[in-house]
Formats: sequence, C-alpha cells, structure tokens
Amino acid sequence: MPLTKNAAKELRALEKKKAREQSGLFVVEGVRLLREAVSSHFTMQTLYYTEGSMDDPETRRLLTEARNRSVDCQQITGRQMGSISGTVQGQGILGVMCQERPPADTLLRPGSEESSIVGLDGVADPGNLGSIIRSADWFGVHGMVLSRNCVDLYNPKVVRSTMGSLFHFPVAVDVDLLPLLSHAKAMGYTVYVTAADGEQHVDRVRFARKSFIVFGSEAWGVSDQVRQLSDVRVAIRRYGLAESLNVGVACGIVLSGLHRMPAD
Amino acid sequence: MPLTKNAAKELRALEKKKAREQSGLFVVEGVRLLREAVSSHFTMQTLYYTEGSMDDPETRRLLTEARNRSVDCQQITGRQMGSISGTVQGQGILGVMCQERPPADTLLRPGSEESSIVGLDGVADPGNLGSIIRSADWFGVHGMVLSRNCVDLYNPKVVRSTMGSLFHFPVAVDVDLLPLLSHAKAMGYTVYVTAADGEQHVDRVRFARKSFIVFGSEAWGVSDQVRQLSDVRVAIRRYGLAESLNVGVACGIVLSGLHRMPAD
Repeated sequence: MPLTKNAAKELRALEKKKAREQSGLFVVEGVRLLREAVSSHFTMQTLYYTEGSMDDPETRRLLTEARNRSVDCQQITGRQMGSISGTVQGQGILGVMCQERPPADTLLRPGSEESSIVGLDGVADPGNLGSIIRSADWFGVHGMVLSRNCVDLYNPKVVRSTMGSLFHFPVAVDVDLLPLLSHAKAMGYTVYVTAADGEQHVDRVRFARKSFIVFGSEAWGVSDQVRQLSDVRVAIRRYGLAESLNVGVACGIVLSGLHRMPAD
Repeated sequence: MPLTKNAAKELRALEKKKAREQSGLFVVEGVRLLREAVSSHFTMQTLYYTEGSMDDPETRRLLTEARNRSVDCQQITGRQMGSISGTVQGQGILGVMCQERPPADTLLRPGSEESSIVGLDGVADPGNLGSIIRSADWFGVHGMVLSRNCVDLYNPKVVRSTMGSLFHFPVAVDVDLLPLLSHAKAMGYTVYVTAADGEQHVDRVRFARKSFIVFGSEAWGVSDQVRQLSDVRVAIRRYGLAESLNVGVACGIVLSGLHRMPAD
C-alpha cells in the first residue's frame, strides 16, 4: 500500500509490542536481514525503498527478488523513510512482515528419535534473546519456546540480533512452560536446566537424544517450578570473581556440548 | 564539588568518548555497580545522590561506605540528577570515577608459570565487550588487552554490562596487538585465535600454561596479521544454519575450555 500519513504512523507504532500484537506485523531493516526475510516462508507485506537506496547493487537485487515473489514494493521519499525507520543511519529500505507463530507442540517432533529444544524462562534483554536464537541455530537445535514473560520475539532489536536466524529457525512464543515440560517428559525428553549449584559439570554432560534445555531470566535464573521438573541441573564452574555469566554466553557454552556422544 | 550548571554539562558530556578521554573520568550508575566501584582500587571523585534515593537502605549503606572512604558526597535535586544521568529510571545515585589504565606489559606476568590473557581485536559492540570481560573474569583469565579500534572501555554501556567485573579485572586499552603478541610469544605464550576454518576443534583444545587468546571484531574476525602470528586456530563447529556466532558467545565457549588439563 502507498505510504499515507496514517500508514506511516501505524508503521512507526510497530516499535511498540502492543501495536505489533494487534496487527500481527513487524518491521525488518537492513539489506542482509531483508534478503533472508524475502526468501523465507515469512510473508512480506510491503517493501518500502528510497530512490537513493537503489545506488547499491545488493539493494537492487533484493528489490528484484521481492518483485519476483510478488511482494508489494513501494518507492517513498527519504523523508518518509525517516518517519518510519527506527535506525539512525538506515539503508533506505524497510520491509513490513507478517509474524509467524508456530505452535509449541509441533516443535516436539513426536515421531523423531532425536530432538533438541531450548526453552527460555523469562529472558528479558532483546540482545540476549537474539544471540540465543543465533546460537541455537548454529548448534543445530530444532526449535525454541519462549515463556510468556520473555521479551517480544518481534522486537526490532531481537530481530536484528538474530542475524537472520529468525527467518528459518522455529520459535514458539507465549508458552506455558510447565505443562509443556510435563508433556515433553512424557514423550521421553530429558529436561536440563543450568544452575549455579548444579550437580553435573557442563563439560561432562552427555545430552540425551531427546533433550529439552531451559535457561532462566537474567535476574532470577529458572523458576523453582521449572527447576523441580528438571532431570539434570548443569553447572558452569567458576574460576574467577565474576558474580554470574551473561545468559546468552551460558546458553552458548551449554549448547556447544550438544553434539558430544549421546548418553543413551 | 557542588553541581554547578557548568559541572553538570561536563558530566553529561562524559557520555561521549572524547570528553572521557580528555578528563580521564567516567560515570557509574546503579547501586550494585557503585558498591563494587567504591570498594575497588578505582578512585571515586564524587558521589551524587538525591534525597529520595536515601529511602533505599542499600543506597544509604553505599553512601556511608563512600564517606568512610573519604569520597566527596554531594546531595543534589532530582531535577539535577535528571540532567546528569544517562538512564531513564535511575536510582538517584551516580558516581564520577577516575579511569585506570594498566599497562599491557604488566599483564603478561613475567615471573609466572601460568597465565591466561585475552586480547580483543576490534570488538565494537559495548554489550559484547562487557559480557566478554564478565566471562573472562568468571573463567579466571588474568587480564585483557584491547586493540585501539575496540569500543571504549569506559563507555557507559560497557561499564554496565561488565556487571562490576570492570572494577577488579585488569584491562589494558589502546594496545598495539602485533608487537605485544610477538613479545608474549618470546615469553613463552602460545597464541590462539578463533577461526571458522581453524584446525583444532574447541572441544579438543588443551590450553598451554601460558595462553594468549585473541578474538576478532563482529564484522571481520581477527586481522590477517594477528592470524599469521597465532600458533593455534580454534574452530567452533557448526551443526545448523546460522552464519556466525555472536563474538561474546564464541569467547565464552572457548574460555570455558581454559581449565581442561593443560597440554604441557
């Protein structure tokens, strides 16, 4: 759709979670991210671009690709772009995408012998969520579930810091973790949590073929109920003085052990 | 010193690197960080607080501690605090600190049999630098050196994301990495870099007693010259589709292997 003043206002509002939830839309900026986005199974509603952005051959290729896929492409002025873009030095191109919400159950892969799922219990920082999705994608995790109190998956900072993984890595949101974990255990999953006083050192963990690994919030770690449901509590041993590790870093360290020989 | 209008302007300017460099000062906010700061070897020049902040017992204890250590403590109005604070919902207390700049040479610990140093080659994101310092501190690394083109150590976001490690973990800045690495090698250090095509898998690395581990920038990795000087190139194997790992995550994964049995 052409960019009326009202439309611009609505797009700008997509910086806020509430407007994203109501519309089911989110915004993607940056040529590299948009290239991942346009060739993914996500629907791109509109691609806005400025005349100036066409100086860049990569951006031109992106536009061609979008048109080939019948995306509605709209040229707008630099001033209009400034009114809808959330970045200070943008590349003059911005996509409006429809959110995807895969149901958590389908991630559990009932028929599969091998499966690894990451659950996040209240991760609040957008950069942390983005980097965790990237790490999970890197280490071949099959999918991720986010508890209700996590930061919104379609927050612009999260989208940016997934570095494109968002567009091919399945993430279920607003998940009630406790019933899902019970369900997963009934399906044969072993549930792991990280804990400062965990009884298994991360270097020695041999993950089960079906593993469900839960990481907690920056402030509180995993909730007591999740901890009680867990089968294995994993510790990352401290040798220095820092009070804690960043949750994204802890997650990367644990997931890097995912492909050691399985335990069963 | 009392907070004149001019002084407030100068403090506010400390958000910028140039002003921090010229004055040798930086700003610390948040009660927890300030508690670490006040009991560290760093010099706190002034502690500004509002009347309201004294409602919190932790803040009162902090103020007492600061006075015991002869820090200049100044009560200011909420409005004045707003004019110097960089955070939207501050706790009404802010410290002005003197920067420390340990020389890189002293970190190499000439007399020591065991030593691990982390070098950063152009890490640009403040959150990444902060979380790397935190990880290095957690895993008992002895010190860190930053190349000239890294983000400023005293950037408020870096300070915050070190979660206090900044105040006891030694970091040398503005370091010319190449001569330092040559020097370290002459002293018996083994130099490690991470590289996508590294010949040693991270799980199999046994770090030498004297290890110098270099991580590269978010965009380019380590520079060619650093790579050529390195003894071991470490790879973190990919099992999924993500293009890369966040540098802070990669660093955490590598450092988590630091305390496996040494190679020599």
